[in-house]
Amino acid sequence: MKIVALAGGVGGARLADGLAQCLPSSQPSSPALPPFAGEGSLTVIVNTGDDFDLWGLRVCPDLDTVMYTLAGIGNPQTGWGIEGDTFEALEMLRRLGEDAWFRVGDRDLAIDLRRTQLLREGKRLTQVTDLLCRSLGVAPNIHILPMTDAQVATLVEADEGTLAFQDYFVRRAWQPVIRRVRFRGIERARPPVEVNTALDDADLVVLCPSNPFVSIDPILSLADVRDQLRGLRTLAVSPIIGGQAVKGPAAKMFRELGQEPTALAVARRYADFLDGFVIDRADANQQGDIERMNMRVLVTDTLMRDRADRARLARETLDFARTIPA
Amino acid sequence: MKIVALAGGVGGARLADGLAQCLPSSQPSSPALPPFAGEGSLTVIVNTGDDFDLWGLRVCPDLDTVMYTLAGIGNPQTGWGIEGDTFEALEMLRRLGEDAWFRVGDRDLAIDLRRTQLLREGKRLTQVTDLLCRSLGVAPNIHILPMTDAQVATLVEADEGTLAFQDYFVRRAWQPVIRRVRFRGIERARPPVEVNTALDDADLVVLCPSNPFVSIDPILSLADVRDQLRGLRTLAVSPIIGGQAVKGPAAKMFRELGQEPTALAVARRYADFLDGFVIDRADANQQGDIERMNMRVLVTDTLMRDRADRARLARETLDFARTIPA
Repeated sequence: MKIVALAGGVGGARLADGLAQCLPSSQPSSPALPPFAGEGSLTVIVNTGDDFDLWGLRVCPDLDTVMYTLAGIGNPQTGWGIEGDTFEALEMLRRLGEDAWFRVGDRDLAIDLRRTQLLREGKRLTQVTDLLCRSLGVAPNIHILPMTDAQVATLVEADEGTLAFQDYFVRRAWQPVIRRVRFRGIERARPPVEVNTALDDADLVVLCPSNPFVSIDPILSLADVRDQLRGLRTLAVSPIIGGQAVKGPAAKMFRELGQEPTALAVARRYADFLDGFVIDRADANQQGDIERMNMRVLVTDTLMRDRADRARLARETLDFARTIPA
Repeated sequence: MKIVALAGGVGGARLADGLAQCLPSSQPSSPALPPFAGEGSLTVIVNTGDDFDLWGLRVCPDLDTVMYTLAGIGNPQTGWGIEGDTFEALEMLRRLGEDAWFRVGDRDLAIDLRRTQLLREGKRLTQVTDLLCRSLGVAPNIHILPMTDAQVATLVEADEGTLAFQDYFVRRAWQPVIRRVRFRGIERARPPVEVNTALDDADLVVLCPSNPFVSIDPILSLADVRDQLRGLRTLAVSPIIGGQAVKGPAAKMFRELGQEPTALAVARRYADFLDGFVIDRADANQQGDIERMNMRVLVTDTLMRDRADRARLARETLDFARTIPA
């Protein structure tokens, strides 16, 4: 089974890790969960709208979060960054008068340095990411792809003006009230050929429980991606549970854009291509409304507290996929 | 008294620290050594022929060694790097397959990042270095100047071919046999106006005990510098003691270029402009030969084991300078 996942940062990385645990060559997180039968691969297409330049380096927060998580070196407490990383360089940059609000660790910095160097040498971000994945020990049947090799910048139009995404998300801790989100450069950007090929070959596409506005939308806004999804077996796992986002501003964004933050509201955004939707038991009352949009619904526990939760949710999602005709 | 010092890395930084300790506003290293009387400033003109690009960053080893030493954050064991620095980024770069032979620490890396960013913004290396010095707490009456804002690269023509300086010095641990040293770009390079002004205003110029071939020669090879020194009161402290270099390849280089490594041989290189030469007691037998080159000689203990040694040698050098007519 060839699985393609669409992901942003922490939440996306968690389900991607669950899907990775279901691949035949991986170790299951618990003896109670046997490996997914048969051959398999996982390709994670990751949002790059968050990417930005920091001290002359190209920083790709979502790509790194997915990469570190699937390499098994992610920080389980924060969900982002490298476990056990130190912040000596950042402290020195502060001493040099830098407003170092983006928490980049020393090992993290090494990744950014190497990436920037490889990009300057003319490699595409897709190639660079693959090289980094192989060096960090991501399994050979797992591929992490940036949604595009072009530079796309997510901009948040807020009550206080237009903010670059990390400025909104990290420096301002997503407190400004948003009016609109847009993706600068999206019209000219194309997915890399590797993304189109992965989608062409996919047996199943899973939209991870990532922020619909700033993680999934950038990917769906790329030329042809949404059209390509219409021809594929596509599921999503809701990032909204009981009216709340597990992490980040998704629920707050729904409200500021004039909608109730519900699983149903998420499903509506994907109704034109989605075949199945996985929602939490807390949202079981929305099952009927979602099914009326011509998609099947799986109701289960969608909160991922630990690695075993990730594997269980992934397995249930894969089993659910089998019930949906290709 | 306005003192200008010419310096390379570790040895140069040590004497520069001694001179800094003699400035009126500085604390003496020992209560037995009262501060140098009167107003004073120290300007250290530093070799940049060692500078190179590493992972896209501009690295200036000698400038950093002098800067860290005079900011009081240098590593006293190695003489280079920052005391207590960690190497997490370097270890990660190794994991990424990089041949990380240049030992850059995490805090060190922050300096390189900030420098590279400021250079990309269009600031001159002289301005960048001054900003870094102020942030790191170098005293206001101490100025550290790169010998040039242009890029000059020291190349070592060795038995095995031409090597970039750090390749020879660090990666090959100065084991290749040298035939010639040259400075790529030196013809087009000019000292920054700050260097010419500092020399114009200098009451005394001190050549620190740095490698004559790869630390002092690049500075002296810059347009007008050597001519400017001929009109100034100029002293040197020998980097050779008893036929040995305290640190680095100076003695080996003398031999490979067909000369005995002696204080006398060092003095000969500077005979056209030097007024006084400070040699070690181990080389007292060369005093007569050196004096015959029309320079005065001070014989003393020139090995700097600790900070008190640096201050003592600097004080003796300054007292010696007073005996030489301006």
